[in-house]
Amino acid sequence: MRIVIPLFDQFTALDAVGPYEVLRMLPDADVVFAAATPGPVVDGAGPLSLVATAALGEITAADLLVVPGGRGARLNVGNEELLDWIRRVHATTRWTTSVCTGSLLLGAAGLLKGLEATTHWSAVADLESYGAVYTPRRVVEQGRIITSAGVSSGIDMALRLAELAAGRVAAEAYQLLIEYDPQPPFDSGSLAKASQEVRDFVAAR
Amino acid sequence: MRIVIPLFDQFTALDAVGPYEVLRMLPDADVVFAAATPGPVVDGAGPLSLVATAALGEITAADLLVVPGGRGARLNVGNEELLDWIRRVHATTRWTTSVCTGSLLLGAAGLLKGLEATTHWSAVADLESYGAVYTPRRVVEQGRIITSAGVSSGIDMALRLAELAAGRVAAEAYQLLIEYDPQPPFDSGSLAKASQEVRDFVAAR
Repeated sequence: MRIVIPLFDQFTALDAVGPYEVLRMLPDADVVFAAATPGPVVDGAGPLSLVATAALGEITAADLLVVPGGRGARLNVGNEELLDWIRRVHATTRWTTSVCTGSLLLGAAGLLKGLEATTHWSAVADLESYGAVYTPRRVVEQGRIITSAGVSSGIDMALRLAELAAGRVAAEAYQLLIEYDPQPPFDSGSLAKASQEVRDFVAAR
Repeated sequence: MRIVIPLFDQFTALDAVGPYEVLRMLPDADVVFAAATPGPVVDGAGPLSLVATAALGEITAADLLVVPGGRGARLNVGNEELLDWIRRVHATTRWTTSVCTGSLLLGAAGLLKGLEATTHWSAVADLESYGAVYTPRRVVEQGRIITSAGVSSGIDMALRLAELAAGRVAAEAYQLLIEYDPQPPFDSGSLAKASQEVRDFVAAR
C-alpha cells in the first residue's frame, strides 16, 4: 500500500500529518512524503518544515494519493509540472484524495469536472471554478476521488479510507490508537455554527 | 508568546502538529521546534521527519511548553538531560503542557506529583508511577500544568490554551479556521467506546 503525500512550500502541516497518523497504520503501509526537490519543505506559517524523502519525479505510481492544502496549494494551481504529476499518479491510484484546499490542485488538474467535492469553507468559489459541484460535507466520495473539508477534516477522511482499505475493525482500532474521541471546548468549527462575532474576527484577521 | 515544542526521535507527529496548527495563530506567536541537535527528527513510524530549528540548550525560557508523546517519550523517561531541560523551562512558563505520553516526561521530571493528569489510555500505570492521579478526561488542567489524552486530544487542548491566552472569540475563530467540526465515521475513540473486537485487534497488533 504505497501512500504518497506531496509537499510544496506553504502547505498546511495538519492537512498532511492528520491523515498520515492514521494511514501509516494500514497493513503494509509505505508512506512517502515527496516534493519537487527532496529535503525540508516549509509550511504556510513558517516555523515548521517537514522533510520530503523523494522527488516528485521519482514517484510514478501510488495506491493512495493525499494532496494537502494551504496557501501553497492556491499558489500552485498554475504549476503545470505539479498538475501533470498529479494527473499521471492519479491514473495509477486506488484513491486520489485531498484535504482542505488540496482540492484546488485536483480541480486545476482537471480531475473534479462535474464531480461533487468539498474544500475549506473559504475556497468554495475557487473549487467551483474548476467545474466541481461544491458539497458542504466533511468528506465527499465520488468513486475513487475523495475530497475533505478544511484542515482537520483529513483525520475523518483518513478513517474512512482506512475502512475502505482494511475494513471497519481496523479503522476503528486506528481511531482508538490515536484516541480520536473529539471534545472541542467550543462548537464553532463550521461557518454554520460559528457566531457572527467569530466570523467577523476571522474576516478581520 | 514564545511556544516551544521539543522533539526527540520516535515522537508522534500528530501530538506536535495538532496543537501547533492552532497555537501558531495566537497573537505574536513565536513557535520553536527544538531538539537535542537542530535538524530533522524522525517520528515513531519512520516515514516522517520534522525539522527542529533550535537546540534544546539554546532555549532557556518559554511562555508555553508543549511536550509531545510517542514511543520516544517512553524511551526518554530516563534522559536526565531532557528532564532537566523540562524542569528549567517549566520554571519560566505560563503553561506547561503535554499531549499523549508526553505526560510521562512531565511525570519523570517530577512535575506531576500529587496532581491530576491524563495520558494515552495505554500509559495509565506509567503515569501513576510518577505520583500523578490519572483522570480519564480529555484535557486536565491543574493550574499552569495541563495534560491531554492520546494523540488527537492535543487539538482540543490547544483550543483551550488559545482561549486562556487570547480569549474565547479568538479560540473559536481558530477552530473555524482549521474547520474543526469533527465527524469521525465511527465512535471508537476511547476504550470505553471501542468494541471488544476492536480492543482485541489493538491488543494483537
